[in-house]
Amino acid sequence: MTFDPSTLTYNEAGLIPAIAQDATSGEVLMMAWMNAEAVAKTLETGRVTYWSRSRQSFWIKGESSGHVQELVDFRVDCDRDCLLVTVNQTGAACHTNRRTCFYTAVRDGTEVELMKPME
Amino acid sequence: MTFDPSTLTYNEAGLIPAIAQDATSGEVLMMAWMNAEAVAKTLETGRVTYWSRSRQSFWIKGESSGHVQELVDFRVDCDRDCLLVTVNQTGAACHTNRRTCFYTAVRDGTEVELMKPME
Repeated sequence: MTFDPSTLTYNEAGLIPAIAQDATSGEVLMMAWMNAEAVAKTLETGRVTYWSRSRQSFWIKGESSGHVQELVDFRVDCDRDCLLVTVNQTGAACHTNRRTCFYTAVRDGTEVELMKPME
Repeated sequence: MTFDPSTLTYNEAGLIPAIAQDATSGEVLMMAWMNAEAVAKTLETGRVTYWSRSRQSFWIKGESSGHVQELVDFRVDCDRDCLLVTVNQTGAACHTNRRTCFYTAVRDGTEVELMKPME
């Protein structure tokens, strides 16, 4: 692999935000963080791998839940400080068991729940 | 407005990431940052307003370029620490004059430019 993850711009904690988008529906599923090694693992394995800030460890998405993200395309933004991964998402992306983490809208000043957890 | 922007979770710099998505095509256009007041301004005006970390000032998207983002829907994620705004984007979202900031893919270890700047 000639692409070098160290050429990306990471924050002071060594992390870069990664947006996951459903490759088929276009739905934005979640945003989490990667470090350079998570970027390399994601590209090498085709399984989207984040860095868990709370656990301070690699987080192979779906490893415990089965809700894996198969990498379809890996994109870098103009400033090289944000990533977009398009994925084939198995099941729910959100830990609340909803398809997407963005299930709450603010409309006319009120929060609206757009979807319920999956059965 | 009953929704209170202070109920969101901001980082140590008082900022929250905001992903902008084209409301029609579903294309992810960019990611930038808001503070609580930018959140309030976005909701009040319907014009997406970020906080510019480099200029340390409000950044009403398109104010100088004309490439405005009209707010269609405002969403909060499960952890209340990331936002998704769906927008009607006029012209290019990216400062390079491309429709989206995510115009570079990494495929087979090589960076590929997916689109040219708009005419």
